[in-house]
Amino acid sequence: MASFWRNRLSLSIFGQSHGPAIGMTLDGLPTGFEIDREALQQFLNRRAPGRNPWSTTRREEDSPEFLTGLANGLTCGAPLTAVIHNQNTRSVDYDKLKSIPRPGHADFPAHIKYGGHQDVAGGGHFSGRLTAPLCIAGGVALQILASKGIYIGAHVASIGKVKDETFDAVSINEGQLAAVAQKEFPAISDEAGQQMKETVEAARMSLDSVGGTIECAIIGLPVGLGEPMFDGMENRLSSMIFGIPAIKGIEFGAGFEVAEMTGSQNNDDYYYENGEVKTKTNNHGGILGGLTTGMPLIFKVAVKPTSSIAQKQGSIDVIKGEDTILEVRGRHDPCIVPRAVPCVESVAAIAILDAMIEGGKL
Amino acid sequence: MASFWRNRLSLSIFGQSHGPAIGMTLDGLPTGFEIDREALQQFLNRRAPGRNPWSTTRREEDSPEFLTGLANGLTCGAPLTAVIHNQNTRSVDYDKLKSIPRPGHADFPAHIKYGGHQDVAGGGHFSGRLTAPLCIAGGVALQILASKGIYIGAHVASIGKVKDETFDAVSINEGQLAAVAQKEFPAISDEAGQQMKETVEAARMSLDSVGGTIECAIIGLPVGLGEPMFDGMENRLSSMIFGIPAIKGIEFGAGFEVAEMTGSQNNDDYYYENGEVKTKTNNHGGILGGLTTGMPLIFKVAVKPTSSIAQKQGSIDVIKGEDTILEVRGRHDPCIVPRAVPCVESVAAIAILDAMIEGGKL
Amino acid sequence: MASFWRNRLSLSIFGQSHGPAIGMTLDGLPTGFEIDREALQQFLNRRAPGRNPWSTTRREEDSPEFLTGLANGLTCGAPLTAVIHNQNTRSVDYDKLKSIPRPGHADFPAHIKYGGHQDVAGGGHFSGRLTAPLCIAGGVALQILASKGIYIGAHVASIGKVKDETFDAVSINEGQLAAVAQKEFPAISDEAGQQMKETVEAARMSLDSVGGTIECAIIGLPVGLGEPMFDGMENRLSSMIFGIPAIKGIEFGAGFEVAEMTGSQNNDDYYYENGEVKTKTNNHGGILGGLTTGMPLIFKVAVKPTSSIAQKQGSIDVIKGEDTILEVRGRHDPCIVPRAVPCVESVAAIAILDAMIEGGKL
Amino acid sequence: MASFWRNRLSLSIFGQSHGPAIGMTLDGLPTGFEIDREALQQFLNRRAPGRNPWSTTRREEDSPEFLTGLANGLTCGAPLTAVIHNQNTRSVDYDKLKSIPRPGHADFPAHIKYGGHQDVAGGGHFSGRLTAPLCIAGGVALQILASKGIYIGAHVASIGKVKDETFDAVSINEGQLAAVAQKEFPAISDEAGQQMKETVEAARMSLDSVGGTIECAIIGLPVGLGEPMFDGMENRLSSMIFGIPAIKGIEFGAGFEVAEMTGSQNNDDYYYENGEVKTKTNNHGGILGGLTTGMPLIFKVAVKPTSSIAQKQGSIDVIKGEDTILEVRGRHDPCIVPRAVPCVESVAAIAILDAMIEGGKL
Repeated sequence: MASFWRNRLSLSIFGQSHGPAIGMTLDGLPTGFEIDREALQQFLNRRAPGRNPWSTTRREEDSPEFLTGLANGLTCGAPLTAVIHNQNTRSVDYDKLKSIPRPGHADFPAHIKYGGHQDVAGGGHFSGRLTAPLCIAGGVALQILASKGIYIGAHVASIGKVKDETFDAVSINEGQLAAVAQKEFPAISDEAGQQMKETVEAARMSLDSVGGTIECAIIGLPVGLGEPMFDGMENRLSSMIFGIPAIKGIEFGAGFEVAEMTGSQNNDDYYYENGEVKTKTNNHGGILGGLTTGMPLIFKVAVKPTSSIAQKQGSIDVIKGEDTILEVRGRHDPCIVPRAVPCVESVAAIAILDAMIEGGKL
Repeated sequence: MASFWRNRLSLSIFGQSHGPAIGMTLDGLPTGFEIDREALQQFLNRRAPGRNPWSTTRREEDSPEFLTGLANGLTCGAPLTAVIHNQNTRSVDYDKLKSIPRPGHADFPAHIKYGGHQDVAGGGHFSGRLTAPLCIAGGVALQILASKGIYIGAHVASIGKVKDETFDAVSINEGQLAAVAQKEFPAISDEAGQQMKETVEAARMSLDSVGGTIECAIIGLPVGLGEPMFDGMENRLSSMIFGIPAIKGIEFGAGFEVAEMTGSQNNDDYYYENGEVKTKTNNHGGILGGLTTGMPLIFKVAVKPTSSIAQKQGSIDVIKGEDTILEVRGRHDPCIVPRAVPCVESVAAIAILDAMIEGGKL
Repeated sequence: MASFWRNRLSLSIFGQSHGPAIGMTLDGLPTGFEIDREALQQFLNRRAPGRNPWSTTRREEDSPEFLTGLANGLTCGAPLTAVIHNQNTRSVDYDKLKSIPRPGHADFPAHIKYGGHQDVAGGGHFSGRLTAPLCIAGGVALQILASKGIYIGAHVASIGKVKDETFDAVSINEGQLAAVAQKEFPAISDEAGQQMKETVEAARMSLDSVGGTIECAIIGLPVGLGEPMFDGMENRLSSMIFGIPAIKGIEFGAGFEVAEMTGSQNNDDYYYENGEVKTKTNNHGGILGGLTTGMPLIFKVAVKPTSSIAQKQGSIDVIKGEDTILEVRGRHDPCIVPRAVPCVESVAAIAILDAMIEGGKL
Repeated sequence: MASFWRNRLSLSIFGQSHGPAIGMTLDGLPTGFEIDREALQQFLNRRAPGRNPWSTTRREEDSPEFLTGLANGLTCGAPLTAVIHNQNTRSVDYDKLKSIPRPGHADFPAHIKYGGHQDVAGGGHFSGRLTAPLCIAGGVALQILASKGIYIGAHVASIGKVKDETFDAVSINEGQLAAVAQKEFPAISDEAGQQMKETVEAARMSLDSVGGTIECAIIGLPVGLGEPMFDGMENRLSSMIFGIPAIKGIEFGAGFEVAEMTGSQNNDDYYYENGEVKTKTNNHGGILGGLTTGMPLIFKVAVKPTSSIAQKQGSIDVIKGEDTILEVRGRHDPCIVPRAVPCVESVAAIAILDAMIEGGKL
């Protein structure tokens, strides 16, 4: 349960925010693949904390140590395990949380579920820090997929009321995905990105936080990945994507906009282009009946504003059994949306790599 | 894979739209439970076709025959299997689809995936007809949950641009859920319902279809159901909800609106009410860190307009390898949103019953 | 749980001994395969009851009705569901069992587990009758494997103290497997078979039953099926084989004899034969490290004597809470070993077909 | 796949024999449990190499470092991960194996399966060394079960032709299990133990190895654990037990002896003893219909002689494509049976703890 995910690939994420180490085991990878360590580190740096004003000031190197899974530098069929040793922890910040749950966090239901034994320091196993090992797994999956001509990229689609441009759902290409990934702030439009940064800074100055959305595109997919009903690509992707803390919604293709469309508007007509089957529009987001159509797979997720804010909030004392006021200290991101971008790419990569293996395409 | 789902409950859905029978097996139910057959049939009738103007004219009784799983009229620990014998099939309508995929349907990727062997009649295994056995499983699960004080209800939240009222996410109660369920058109506001029906009728008259949204509430849940990361309640619910054809998005609590909120707006403050822990607002939709908080679990899904429309559409002939024009015949719903309401309730019930058993609450 | 099995293939077995029907759903099959119905029926007849002196007198046609999974007579990618309608049931025989558990049956633990709600008629879901749908699934899997050059056959290796010859673990071929399968009593040596039948008849005459062993061989396998540790071929096969009631042991290759061997005796030396890698002996039974080696996969299972015997036995009355004497009536096999032979072949076929799909070999 | 196992507990085993570290993640444990580290280390020492004449001379401390899963020294609901850093590795021993597979090892099928990329050093992921992390998981599970009154113990039942006494299947108690566990050589009879040691020494002196059997008993179980068909206790235990390298057979209760028994001999009559249901004999080994009966659960496994022997053996050179002679160097156990005893206990403990959680008994 919980932090184990298993299909053709198997993934286990372990660790607590302020424990000695966090890590992951990824099993079922194709053999003979050489992980580009430098590219992986660059990918992890996109998520790593302490590097810019919209991130927590807790700086961690997030440099993975590979314990198993490689022989002569290549994947060898054994499970791939990597750990990151936590360095910059200040558990003293969290003492009060043992009895006073933070609004918007897992503290209260975890307290009930685990009988008060859950690790509260830094959010324990519920911390966003656990997305670091998720990104190790995702980073490796992205590299393997890229070697097969499948590319995945995401960008900050909005923060607060500021909206970025969107990917062109029909024509998005590898170069455009790579261009956004290289930016320090991953928005397509630099102007929108600048306004977003200002929105985050404003939230930070008012001891508040702000939410946003992330759009993700996957290109180069074969036709027919996925299975009907409970194993369609939407099922698989959504089932994993909500593993990223703070995600509260997901939509594929035209998503919630389909609710206001007619069939004649929403249906994507087929045609042949150089012998390949394409659709003229891509409201279906590359998935029909749970199966990939070969068109770009497009989805968007909603990210809630960071729950940890320095303002006073109404809470309860579960030991004393009374209402109280909570003032959270600690180091927090005023907006986690930019750092969640590589997490979304990671989950997408793991789900797609798994489907590729299952479909006999790898 | 595919139409098997397995956790503590196991569910298998089988059948094709125009085959001899469709059905389901549900395993892992608590024993000694008496299924109220009349109530189950009433529930199935909410989904059944051919009963009102917004539904296909294909009328089916959808009366389940229970083959196994009962002894002396009570659940006995053996898998529960029920079948519905298809009656009103006209496969002649579908001959053309063997070579010309319908836009918006699974036809094209299924053709590639199954090497041309997929059943095209009525959409085969991809047909919305497969939601009938899903509703058998769901109807049974709903009855068991109700016997434990857990109630699930959904309504048409919008069709086209017409919006219904929303559930009160903090105070929604059993009576309100039951009231909507009893209506022929499941909208909270009768006025909105009337406008929705007119919207559907307009679509039907123009040989078109229209989409919408469905809101679902689950009340009476204990605190702490679900597991962190990949087995949270959002993961579980979304993983199954996309098993309903035509769903393109899901959001929990405030959903995509969180993107424009600040933390101080979005966080739900805790307080005690008669010794029970509540939140003053319910933007979190009853789930934090993947775990239930005891507040109403609220989610909303987007339903695309029926893909089968009688207008001419651009398609391809996969045998001849050329572009062509498709005119779909057959009997189709101008809007599937109302009939999808019990399907959403069903999926929710199965996921919740499973989590209850897993959590040792049943 | 329970009667659901899921990997790349998914299998659900449903039914109770004296319920209206028993059946199975098998999902994940390759498409475009035509099931040879006549050959399937012949295979099922090898297991069917009421046909010879060593079987129960309950005669059932065991003729499967395929509800779903086929289009134009070929597998179409939808789950394959088949049911057998029970005909010859006499539940009156079982009334006493509601309170007095039969020694050697699941009655007592089932009574505790299901709170007295289990179906006792004919053993309910625990009945050997449930191996009929298992053999439908297995019979289909065997046909698909045979079309790929993989053959599976089993024989009665012993009944009581009478032993059959064994397969030659190195050279066993398709013709030898087919020859045993065609016999009414599936022993390699007709003389041993005759003695076995006499042993069974003697048990029947003394109102008793008798156990035995079954040896199974699988030939034509590629090298490298299976996965290390918990997903090796021994794990997979044993995990399913104990789904056949009455199996109490399984051994692969030299099996328990390895306990008395030295490494130099047990190790199977490699050599090339016409460019193919072979081993000179086959003590490893075609599996090393959980992986197939390409040599015949050989395993043997122990089948206990039928628990239902007409002699008086010591039991308890769970309602009255006191010791009592039980005299079982009903119709029972004096020896189930011969009828279990196609069941063993079926389980082997399902496990191997699944591993073939997983390994991308199909 | 492979080294991931998942039900209510989830277990991942990672590592290679000569890699930097080996380890395990165990998820789903009850919270608030304090692991007795000293008792765990003593348990691990029973398996650890380099401590006595019947073990390899590779000495490893096998002292686990817990990276995650604890808060304030208690299990906290987060996955429990522990690693052991390999110390005493000499990979130079294994160079030749890259092209010449050892008879009786996974080398050849692994070479084909992984395209030559498998780690050959020390057997890589197929090494018996991976049972060290298995014993960490098992040791923790054993402690939790003991706190609930469930005790598990195993002993060397035979080595070569020397046989130990057997557990009394009806009356075996905690004290007897503990007594065997404390011995340096885990045989019930010291005399048999002495002869076994001599048998091992004789094998070692002749550059050979020797096999044996292990008997395991589990006492204190509630009635009704397990599920019918594919999830019975025999299925679960066997499915994991073959994860221990070198196991070639498993039997429950009377096991293969049932083949020569009649029903009247094999059936275990019920009776009440102080209000508890017991059987007079225990040929069923505590399992009927896949469900625990409350009687001691007894099973026996066959362990093959160590495949690595220093004698010359016939093999092939997969690079050159020709037959050759192999002389294995390296440090190996002349008999792994004694060190496999805690591994068998470990697997049993994990399977039982999982079934207890599933059955709502914990």
